[in-house]
Amino acid sequence: MERVRSVHVAARVGTRVRVVGWLQAQRRLGGVTFLVVRDGWGVVQAVVADEARLAPLAGALLESVVELEGDVVAEAQAPGGAELHSVTLRVLTAVTEPTPLLLGKKTVPAQLPALLEHAVVGNRHPTRRAVFRLGAAAMRGFRGSLDARGFTEIQSPKLVGTATEGGAHVFSVDYFGRPAYLAQSPQLYKQIMVGVFERVYEVGPVFRAEPHDTARHINQYTSLDVELGFIASHVDVMRELSETLRAMLAELAASSAAELALLGARLPVVPETIPSLHFSEAQELLSRALGEHERGQPDLSPEGERWLGRWAVEQHGSEWLFVEGYPMRKRPFYTHPDPARPEHSNSFDLLFRGTELVTGGQRLHRYQDYVAALAARGMSEAPVAAYLEAFKNGMPAHGGFAIGLERFLMQLLGLPNIRLAVLFPRDLTRLAP
Amino acid sequence: MERVRSVHVAARVGTRVRVVGWLQAQRRLGGVTFLVVRDGWGVVQAVVADEARLAPLAGALLESVVELEGDVVAEAQAPGGAELHSVTLRVLTAVTEPTPLLLGKKTVPAQLPALLEHAVVGNRHPTRRAVFRLGAAAMRGFRGSLDARGFTEIQSPKLVGTATEGGAHVFSVDYFGRPAYLAQSPQLYKQIMVGVFERVYEVGPVFRAEPHDTARHINQYTSLDVELGFIASHVDVMRELSETLRAMLAELAASSAAELALLGARLPVVPETIPSLHFSEAQELLSRALGEHERGQPDLSPEGERWLGRWAVEQHGSEWLFVEGYPMRKRPFYTHPDPARPEHSNSFDLLFRGTELVTGGQRLHRYQDYVAALAARGMSEAPVAAYLEAFKNGMPAHGGFAIGLERFLMQLLGLPNIRLAVLFPRDLTRLAP
Repeated sequence: MERVRSVHVAARVGTRVRVVGWLQAQRRLGGVTFLVVRDGWGVVQAVVADEARLAPLAGALLESVVELEGDVVAEAQAPGGAELHSVTLRVLTAVTEPTPLLLGKKTVPAQLPALLEHAVVGNRHPTRRAVFRLGAAAMRGFRGSLDARGFTEIQSPKLVGTATEGGAHVFSVDYFGRPAYLAQSPQLYKQIMVGVFERVYEVGPVFRAEPHDTARHINQYTSLDVELGFIASHVDVMRELSETLRAMLAELAASSAAELALLGARLPVVPETIPSLHFSEAQELLSRALGEHERGQPDLSPEGERWLGRWAVEQHGSEWLFVEGYPMRKRPFYTHPDPARPEHSNSFDLLFRGTELVTGGQRLHRYQDYVAALAARGMSEAPVAAYLEAFKNGMPAHGGFAIGLERFLMQLLGLPNIRLAVLFPRDLTRLAP
Repeated sequence: MERVRSVHVAARVGTRVRVVGWLQAQRRLGGVTFLVVRDGWGVVQAVVADEARLAPLAGALLESVVELEGDVVAEAQAPGGAELHSVTLRVLTAVTEPTPLLLGKKTVPAQLPALLEHAVVGNRHPTRRAVFRLGAAAMRGFRGSLDARGFTEIQSPKLVGTATEGGAHVFSVDYFGRPAYLAQSPQLYKQIMVGVFERVYEVGPVFRAEPHDTARHINQYTSLDVELGFIASHVDVMRELSETLRAMLAELAASSAAELALLGARLPVVPETIPSLHFSEAQELLSRALGEHERGQPDLSPEGERWLGRWAVEQHGSEWLFVEGYPMRKRPFYTHPDPARPEHSNSFDLLFRGTELVTGGQRLHRYQDYVAALAARGMSEAPVAAYLEAFKNGMPAHGGFAIGLERFLMQLLGLPNIRLAVLFPRDLTRLAP
């Protein structure tokens, strides 16, 4: 008999079906046994009145892989609105020791360290699985939107000979006896590729050797990177970003209603025009609201970002807020200044629900500007010579942005720790599973 | 005036348009000057009869970024069937030194080392660009096909605490003072994720520290990885693979006719059923054709693969050939044996045009089988304990495959060196650009 997926069982009321999956729960209630079997898409409930029919389960604990045949009966109380009766059971793979985490409840009854240590099992829980299904949908929306607007997907090297974005927080690799580093971002590569395709994106791992043990830091994350040429300024990049976000959220709305409902998540609306503040305006507001310590800083404090998030909702009804024109002095060497206020940059951050989600901006595109920017920072040209060749050979004004996929999921779902947005997170102490 | 992309110019005959891009060629012929401007999608030709109009180009060499306005005139000889007349020119970014590679000819007149050293410029050439556009289309077809069949995209860690697939060819990383390794594949992670989603795929970089300097080796490549549960044997995996390949090629046919034509590439047909040989049959054929040295080997020789490629075309009219049942002794510890012939495995290679393109098979799924397989190989359980937890907690029969994106492009396009299928290849000596 053809196997039927859990989510299609309710459409088969009145027929007999075969279901396979994991024995997620087994409960005796009012003289009958309820079995809940989970497959890759959902769960099916089976009701067994005749205890003899449970005999094949002897010695097979929860999470055993099982096969059920049963008659599909409509039952409003059952998951999906149907359940299986007159069940025949078979164990395909028996579990003989209790699982390290219980998966039969609404949430996983475990603290974060246990959840991470046993992620190979914990990720099976429907609430965990929903997070990663949403991540897959977000990537699909991201790519689909960019493909439709003439962007080309690229794959850049993750092993580089020079740590171009500051040497402190890079992982060192032994590359056939030579020193190499794990790429902190595809930044220079995506810029170079503007010279080839004009519009490019990459979805891939980036590596940050930041020795911070916080709820917001992980050492490998998935960066959704975009870069495009022939822009007038960073404002064109902000427009592309807004459109990309709208498409990502549209994809989530279209494909992932069940996951969003399960997690109690609410999709934000991306306004036609996301409100924007200049960095100096933002600092002025924050100084008045939170005190003078916000003034003169090169960046916004997390407290300041949260305040601005509330401000944007109150003043503009928007969960999104652009902050433009961050001071040049803390921005990387490839940052393009604001021609009208050269101590400020043509860069932006996008705050989502009071936290920075996206960083972007216009980059330098003239070779001589790179030479000057490196010199001004006391940086040598030699390590980046192979990259600067692109600028020597003609580059248009360009810019781009990067979205951290896990940060996006964390903010969207209100997760308390970014590790919960990663299948198998890497942090200061964690290299397995 | 709104900018018009090169590929849309021919649709605007009789109007005046603005085009931006790179000055790819400039030729004086019969008293007029032909300019060829390349943008992210194609090229436009402009004809300038009045030399005074070229004045803005003074000092701007090839690959300068330029803006042209001109009247679109139909001209069968011109690229795309139209060209620009009455041209106004502006240089947006001037190039002042000659480019390291000439981009105005049909091919790049450079040897491989120069092409790789100057890849940031070389990748701009239409023939190079076409390779990577095809790569993007192949990834799109791969993901689209799997999404449609209920697979979920995952992102696995690239930094691992243990080198699970053999320790010799891994890159070592200093992970906050502890040893770590770059993942050689997402193998164990994709298997574990069968326990979560049943059907998963990943597109991402993998790292091989193989110290070989050949036309077929690179040290980072893009692996298209698939894994699925509830299979009867590796034959189910072969069926999924065939369907995936058909979808990838359909996407190339639908989206990339221009790139394929430019490169003179012919798309193969994937037969309804790809012909298949058991490894022992293949060896028997090869021993008769090529000599006894093929017999008793645990793998096929490159010469043997090429012979089998020709054989499949002659006997079955297929450029694809499965070889099933490779001997267990050289396969990794997670390989599932053929229950009927336990010295052979439920694994396969897929040869495409006489070269191995895909490796796949069924994996062990019972915890006790892993314990036994590790013991038989003298391997310790401890380093993989975190992974084995998935098998201890119930896994169905499963299997999968991996396609090397660059190998696929190399074979599809007949490239003489796999480095030509990578934007910025990593090899024994190359860490930049």
